[in-house]
Amino acid sequence: MAAKEKTLVGVIMGSDSDYPVMAEAGRMLEKFGIGFEVEVVSAHRSPARAAEYAETAAKRGLRAIIVGAGGAAHLAGVVAALTTLPVIGVPMPSTSLNGMDSLLSTVQMPGGVSVATMAIGKPGATNAGIFAAQILALSDADIARKLVDYKKELDSGVAEKSARLKREIAEKK
Amino acid sequence: MAAKEKTLVGVIMGSDSDYPVMAEAGRMLEKFGIGFEVEVVSAHRSPARAAEYAETAAKRGLRAIIVGAGGAAHLAGVVAALTTLPVIGVPMPSTSLNGMDSLLSTVQMPGGVSVATMAIGKPGATNAGIFAAQILALSDADIARKLVDYKKELDSGVAEKSARLKREIAEKK
Amino acid sequence: MAAKEKTLVGVIMGSDSDYPVMAEAGRMLEKFGIGFEVEVVSAHRSPARAAEYAETAAKRGLRAIIVGAGGAAHLAGVVAALTTLPVIGVPMPSTSLNGMDSLLSTVQMPGGVSVATMAIGKPGATNAGIFAAQILALSDADIARKLVDYKKELDSGVAEKSARLKREIAEKK
Amino acid sequence: MAAKEKTLVGVIMGSDSDYPVMAEAGRMLEKFGIGFEVEVVSAHRSPARAAEYAETAAKRGLRAIIVGAGGAAHLAGVVAALTTLPVIGVPMPSTSLNGMDSLLSTVQMPGGVSVATMAIGKPGATNAGIFAAQILALSDADIARKLVDYKKELDSGVAEKSARLKREIAEKK
Amino acid sequence: MAAKEKTLVGVIMGSDSDYPVMAEAGRMLEKFGIGFEVEVVSAHRSPARAAEYAETAAKRGLRAIIVGAGGAAHLAGVVAALTTLPVIGVPMPSTSLNGMDSLLSTVQMPGGVSVATMAIGKPGATNAGIFAAQILALSDADIARKLVDYKKELDSGVAEKSARLKREIAEKK
Amino acid sequence: MAAKEKTLVGVIMGSDSDYPVMAEAGRMLEKFGIGFEVEVVSAHRSPARAAEYAETAAKRGLRAIIVGAGGAAHLAGVVAALTTLPVIGVPMPSTSLNGMDSLLSTVQMPGGVSVATMAIGKPGATNAGIFAAQILALSDADIARKLVDYKKELDSGVAEKSARLKREIAEKK
Amino acid sequence: MAAKEKTLVGVIMGSDSDYPVMAEAGRMLEKFGIGFEVEVVSAHRSPARAAEYAETAAKRGLRAIIVGAGGAAHLAGVVAALTTLPVIGVPMPSTSLNGMDSLLSTVQMPGGVSVATMAIGKPGATNAGIFAAQILALSDADIARKLVDYKKELDSGVAEKSARLKREIAEKK
Amino acid sequence: MAAKEKTLVGVIMGSDSDYPVMAEAGRMLEKFGIGFEVEVVSAHRSPARAAEYAETAAKRGLRAIIVGAGGAAHLAGVVAALTTLPVIGVPMPSTSLNGMDSLLSTVQMPGGVSVATMAIGKPGATNAGIFAAQILALSDADIARKLVDYKKELDSGVAEKSARLKREIAEKK
Repeated sequence: MAAKEKTLVGVIMGSDSDYPVMAEAGRMLEKFGIGFEVEVVSAHRSPARAAEYAETAAKRGLRAIIVGAGGAAHLAGVVAALTTLPVIGVPMPSTSLNGMDSLLSTVQMPGGVSVATMAIGKPGATNAGIFAAQILALSDADIARKLVDYKKELDSGVAEKSARLKREIAEKK
Repeated sequence: MAAKEKTLVGVIMGSDSDYPVMAEAGRMLEKFGIGFEVEVVSAHRSPARAAEYAETAAKRGLRAIIVGAGGAAHLAGVVAALTTLPVIGVPMPSTSLNGMDSLLSTVQMPGGVSVATMAIGKPGATNAGIFAAQILALSDADIARKLVDYKKELDSGVAEKSARLKREIAEKK
Repeated sequence: MAAKEKTLVGVIMGSDSDYPVMAEAGRMLEKFGIGFEVEVVSAHRSPARAAEYAETAAKRGLRAIIVGAGGAAHLAGVVAALTTLPVIGVPMPSTSLNGMDSLLSTVQMPGGVSVATMAIGKPGATNAGIFAAQILALSDADIARKLVDYKKELDSGVAEKSARLKREIAEKK
Repeated sequence: MAAKEKTLVGVIMGSDSDYPVMAEAGRMLEKFGIGFEVEVVSAHRSPARAAEYAETAAKRGLRAIIVGAGGAAHLAGVVAALTTLPVIGVPMPSTSLNGMDSLLSTVQMPGGVSVATMAIGKPGATNAGIFAAQILALSDADIARKLVDYKKELDSGVAEKSARLKREIAEKK
Repeated sequence: MAAKEKTLVGVIMGSDSDYPVMAEAGRMLEKFGIGFEVEVVSAHRSPARAAEYAETAAKRGLRAIIVGAGGAAHLAGVVAALTTLPVIGVPMPSTSLNGMDSLLSTVQMPGGVSVATMAIGKPGATNAGIFAAQILALSDADIARKLVDYKKELDSGVAEKSARLKREIAEKK
Repeated sequence: MAAKEKTLVGVIMGSDSDYPVMAEAGRMLEKFGIGFEVEVVSAHRSPARAAEYAETAAKRGLRAIIVGAGGAAHLAGVVAALTTLPVIGVPMPSTSLNGMDSLLSTVQMPGGVSVATMAIGKPGATNAGIFAAQILALSDADIARKLVDYKKELDSGVAEKSARLKREIAEKK
Repeated sequence: MAAKEKTLVGVIMGSDSDYPVMAEAGRMLEKFGIGFEVEVVSAHRSPARAAEYAETAAKRGLRAIIVGAGGAAHLAGVVAALTTLPVIGVPMPSTSLNGMDSLLSTVQMPGGVSVATMAIGKPGATNAGIFAAQILALSDADIARKLVDYKKELDSGVAEKSARLKREIAEKK
Repeated sequence: MAAKEKTLVGVIMGSDSDYPVMAEAGRMLEKFGIGFEVEVVSAHRSPARAAEYAETAAKRGLRAIIVGAGGAAHLAGVVAALTTLPVIGVPMPSTSLNGMDSLLSTVQMPGGVSVATMAIGKPGATNAGIFAAQILALSDADIARKLVDYKKELDSGVAEKSARLKREIAEKK
């Protein structure tokens, strides 16, 4: 509950066109009852805004920042340079190179400044939300319990899908 | 202090030949005064051991697990499937493909199970240690202070290197 | 005949969305008169289920396991770690990186645990079915004969297509 | 025993310079007590020889063929086109592109003709030997038992390496 | 003239689905008045047919062979192994990996057997036809003259397109 | 002359270990008589320093900034975000991925903020120096003349090397 | 003003099919009030035309040349070899390999001849126009002022998009 | 004979540092008794020289041009644009990207101008020499006979190597 009322996670992205992907992070945060805020912040087009966001994040009560960016994806690194909060990077797939550029620009950080990089695109955004919950769960028993439940859901979801697929195959014969 | 006396982070790797890289994670954890344990655990050669490690990690008091693996690097994902603790993956560079295989095998996780992926090799191992500290700092003021100091060190280190380089260039002329 | 009545091959996949690709493996097994079962089993979402599947496969009479998985495709490796049956991996194409991640995650296994990797997508699934038949043919003269016939079919299929194409070109002139 | 006295597996390679890698396959076959033969056969430089090798393999009593080749690695595919025996491909790392070309040329077979592809280089050659053993074990209880033992060896090897590494780290402190 | 009446170039492809691409090679051969034949020949599905085609090509009067193939594209190399005629390879784009596999499988031939590789897809097929004409032009003045004319056509085609584009831009203003 | 006395170009790099590569840029600037300064500035370790450098560059009289960075190479983009001066990026080769990550992180900038990217490593650093000279030559006749001379030098250098190589080949016979 | 009346920048491309991408460069030049000309010039199909364009560019008053080309994209390098004007290269995305070939062919220039390479496709064309403006701004206060304004526009554009996105999210709840 | 006395093939390269690779082409031309000349010609550093070489090649009696170049390897394409002679391209491996850039810059030619691309590095240079011989053999019975002999040599070379390897393995036991 407390977690929901407070804004604990920032979900930022380099462009509003990244939102359909990044909405998956929000969906997971909601699922785990974690309050979050959404902003469009560009490392290149609004550098001062990006710096200010990073520098004030901890003071404003955030505990983790999820960052989506594509191409020469500098936003996660730029934010990580200016905060000691955990920064979680999601490489966008929306480029000529299908997100390989976004991935390498996000993950290949030099020793000293870390970005926790997730998969390219929607699976990565989903997992960014889950990973933020995993961090918060270390000091929040409610979120911890929800994560355990979620793992069970995943497991039973697979079992159900398997059963359904087998039925469909049987019916076709 | 408390952090140092307790083993809070597991540093595991798929092969003992990964240790020269993974030692960098340990070096950073020591710097931030965080107790950790080291194990060789293979997802493929010792799957039961890997499963047991993951399943008992939280109960044994760990708060995060750093995983180094190379090639078809499954260890981080296998561990993440069996724990709700944050799992931090470090792709090993020691393969024919220079670690591109390790990176993709670690980072491209499906939605539902997250691995926080770091850069390939030593910079990644260094940052895995830092990232674990960033997670723990959320509930440990001592580590938080050390992280702030570390950022200052990084900054002054750059300034010193710049000054030294400029002196060396001037002397050569 | 015997081969058809018994379930000799397991065809498993990480997600039900992989079925349109993996159905090609089933199609070939049917063609060669080999009984098989289909399951959705996720290395990451249902790890216990995956482990149990692998550990009981030989006892349940399976002689080979065909595994389809995508992205950080760990399922084939995870299964291969827990059985001495031949495991045949099919990398799924359904990712941002067109299956390059699936391929490397499946094929780059460390020395000690082997996964027989096929091409990305449908050709790979087709060939997984054929390869399972090739293994079973070593001790089943019926399947062996069907494989010889199949090679002849392939050959005459090419000759027919060549003749048809030449007719079509001639008619256009 | 029977397995050792008879030549059951062919280990062929496109060039004698591939032998240091392919010797790993032989090492594993010896470990499992499986008789094998070694030949240099080039799809491009000795095509008739390659065709003859493939066409006579089954008649000569072989049960599987392990093929190492690099660059535009056609040998495994060429052999697989001419036999119904299981063909296991090992991509050589010895090229400008570090074996990525060898891997894609070996694995991306069209539907209809299958090559069971292993990892690039020595781990792949090791696993090719193991995979041949896994196939033969389906009808040879002795090899099957050795494979079970080998899995235990792998497991205890990891445990030993872990213990040794921990001792070394403790001693350094 | 003579060139048109005789079949001087073979245009072969691994699958009839490659024809829409390979038709571009035929279009260029027609433009230069060079007689050619079209066949579907698979290195993997019809290996004997492929070998026979290559071995009889020179005797049947062919002066060059254009080969289109995709994925683990072995056909050009297999043909080149069995003839001393110039073999021109065209990598097909129709694969999960957009033809990168086709390209590497065609171009990375070992020293001793050469395949003249063209670009992936239609531009490559077009250029394969032109390149065959360039070879034949060395001993056929008529083709040589047509090649000179073709270069002029290319040049004036660019000038015309440039003029048209400038007109269109001017009209829009 | 004036150009030499004034510091017109900044040559900055993310780490002092980049200097052996970036020295090539300095070598070319000296050749063209252009004053420059060298600094180590890290986008990640010294972000405030990097921002200050970029924001004050124009005021301090610089006309172009050459930036060398490797891995997740954000420095050029970060600087370009904060100045309207031309920024020239040189991707460092010193990474696991041989500089492919550095290249993509530097060149794939989003529309709105431009980085003029050069080749990976020393050729890129050389060309960065030349390109800065090309920019300055637009308003400095002395540099313009030197660029014309340099092109002649390049041309005669090739002719000399060709002559020398031909002599050496002739002597060996 | 002067800038608008004179043709200061050449925007050339290898094919008229590149125009929809390259039009973005023109759009930015117009925005900054810079006169430009558009030509289709092919390094391969109209080499004399390309050479003449490059050799006369400076004399005709151009101050920079923007070059779009795809595949084996030689045009920018060919032009840069024949002029001392700054050459800005834009790799086209319209190839089998999504522009990776265009990028490497444009950026990996040897030491001695520089091409300022932009991102693949439209963002690159946009930035090529901006970069030309940045060069011209060094000696044109009007363009310099417009560049400062443009940076402000970018910044406020991000703020607006962020506000709009937040409103839309709030409304959906 | 005639072939040896006349200079029929040009072997050119972008840099004298390419000679150790390109010497392999010369070695094969000598083997087949074909006269050739060697030149260093740079598309970028000596464009006029490159153009003149291409434009005069046919008149000077050349029948084919072998071109070695690396990085943004434009030389083969630039030469092919200016001659109707067959141009054979050899991508140099001497770059940060191990020759992948050289390969793509050489092979991905647009429709209209063809370059016959060989493998990266020495195998490619060897095959360029062989391919030139294959072209000349169409109208020179002596070279044609030598090519047939060479194919036999390749074949017996493989047989000898196979025999030697088997002896060595037998001796070790």
